[in-house]
Amino acid sequence: MNESIRQVGYIGLGIMGAAMASNLAKAGFALTVWNRTRSKCKPFAKQGATVADSPADLAAKGPDVICLNVTDTADVEQVLFGDDGVVAGAKPGLIVVDHSTISPMATREFACKLAGHDITLVDAPVSGGDVGAREGTLSIMVGGPDDAVQRLQPMFEAVGKTISHLGESGTGQACKACNQIAVVCNLMGVCEAMAMAKKTGLDVSKMLEAIAGGAAGSWQLANLGPRIAKGDFDPGFMIDLVLKDLGIVDDTARQQRLPLAGTSTAEGYFRAVAAAGGGKLGTQAMAKALENLGAVDLK
Amino acid sequence: MNESIRQVGYIGLGIMGAAMASNLAKAGFALTVWNRTRSKCKPFAKQGATVADSPADLAAKGPDVICLNVTDTADVEQVLFGDDGVVAGAKPGLIVVDHSTISPMATREFACKLAGHDITLVDAPVSGGDVGAREGTLSIMVGGPDDAVQRLQPMFEAVGKTISHLGESGTGQACKACNQIAVVCNLMGVCEAMAMAKKTGLDVSKMLEAIAGGAAGSWQLANLGPRIAKGDFDPGFMIDLVLKDLGIVDDTARQQRLPLAGTSTAEGYFRAVAAAGGGKLGTQAMAKALENLGAVDLK
Repeated sequence: MNESIRQVGYIGLGIMGAAMASNLAKAGFALTVWNRTRSKCKPFAKQGATVADSPADLAAKGPDVICLNVTDTADVEQVLFGDDGVVAGAKPGLIVVDHSTISPMATREFACKLAGHDITLVDAPVSGGDVGAREGTLSIMVGGPDDAVQRLQPMFEAVGKTISHLGESGTGQACKACNQIAVVCNLMGVCEAMAMAKKTGLDVSKMLEAIAGGAAGSWQLANLGPRIAKGDFDPGFMIDLVLKDLGIVDDTARQQRLPLAGTSTAEGYFRAVAAAGGGKLGTQAMAKALENLGAVDLK
Repeated sequence: MNESIRQVGYIGLGIMGAAMASNLAKAGFALTVWNRTRSKCKPFAKQGATVADSPADLAAKGPDVICLNVTDTADVEQVLFGDDGVVAGAKPGLIVVDHSTISPMATREFACKLAGHDITLVDAPVSGGDVGAREGTLSIMVGGPDDAVQRLQPMFEAVGKTISHLGESGTGQACKACNQIAVVCNLMGVCEAMAMAKKTGLDVSKMLEAIAGGAAGSWQLANLGPRIAKGDFDPGFMIDLVLKDLGIVDDTARQQRLPLAGTSTAEGYFRAVAAAGGGKLGTQAMAKALENLGAVDLK
């Protein structure tokens, strides 16, 4: 069980997955890849990766670990348990690392089902965006059994910088939910502060500079505030995806009977922007919700 | 008009005012002080400051500048325009620096009225708390005419580190309102993330460490998160005072027809804690609002 990991399967070569898989290859792991849109496998094939025909085929090739980087809970379920899914081809002892952001409750269910096949699931959602994925500086929030997590450490170090093992299965996803709560409330504070600045005739950029270094300071303010000020709404992280994540937060909060009034308010702003056609914009386009209410033009 | 400032009057020797006046004295400014509770003048008298009998008396002694550090809009009005107020004793050419956090609209009115007496008002609310005041590292958000603000620069440098001149009269107060908006929304994100962590069985401190370095990071999370985790609700900044500041934000937003749903939600949490007797606790006791809803014990 404690031998080092060499063979890694990678499922899901979107922006995040491709960058992370690329860093694994650079670190010397031997890759087998599969992606729903097959063309995305090509750059990896050129660099010597094996391309599998299906998740089951990939699993049957006997990797030590399979990483998943897909969009939502339903995608993870399909890739693991569907026809031609990982379970259909896997050998006992496999570790599945799920880098997707999905439901903590579903994660615990999937871990139980996989354990019945002698497969260990480790949830390991990430934060840090496409830049962090490319530069290998992601924060990785890990949930799963100690021995598997220890074995995975060299892989995690190849793709991330802050690696936090929170506890048993599902705790990585629960931590990611906490992360998204803090992110969206911070961004809401930035957008409302900027709306107030504009309405009261302040130079919005000067206001951001004046408050950035004190108790109002945050990553969101420092990084997204200036983009909002110059009307740059290109995505680092898309509104459609944060709404997906907030759906997970909502589901978890509902099951726990946990009122999250601030997070719900932020979600309302995102929904307003998405409803107006802004779902593919970056999260900083939350500022447009204040425009849409007729309040203020942040440009 | 451009000669350097030597004689400074200080009105309001509370926690913030006393620390800031003390730093002015250390920097070589000659102080005359007045405080409603006269005993707070004693430490300054011992160090050579003159003690005035009233704001009018203080103004009559002819300082170049009078600094105010009182609680609310009504206090500033009383100290300036009341019987025995500054205006009753002031000589033409006086500059009044208001370090209090008060209404931006009222500030503009006060500036107009003072101009009729050849007195210049500069609004200069601060952020950085009692620690920043003692260490002289405050952020100062300044509104007022260029020439007066330039003349005041050596004074500001004696009490603060980040000195931002936002524009004309009232813009310092407007910027402080923006600052408080961002602060309370960030804190709300921290409290809701911690509630989610507790409810889903995470180690709350581990969660804070896992997310602090990424897109969820903020001053509020780094500084107040750990205090909440260990049940330390002692005030840096009291809930009663943030509610006073949010009253100013509300008034301004109402006049500007600006909807601030996130800020209002945060204010609701603070009100719940204050209603339960927690007004003298630090702002981080917002976390108790989630307890009071029966949601979660954050201790």
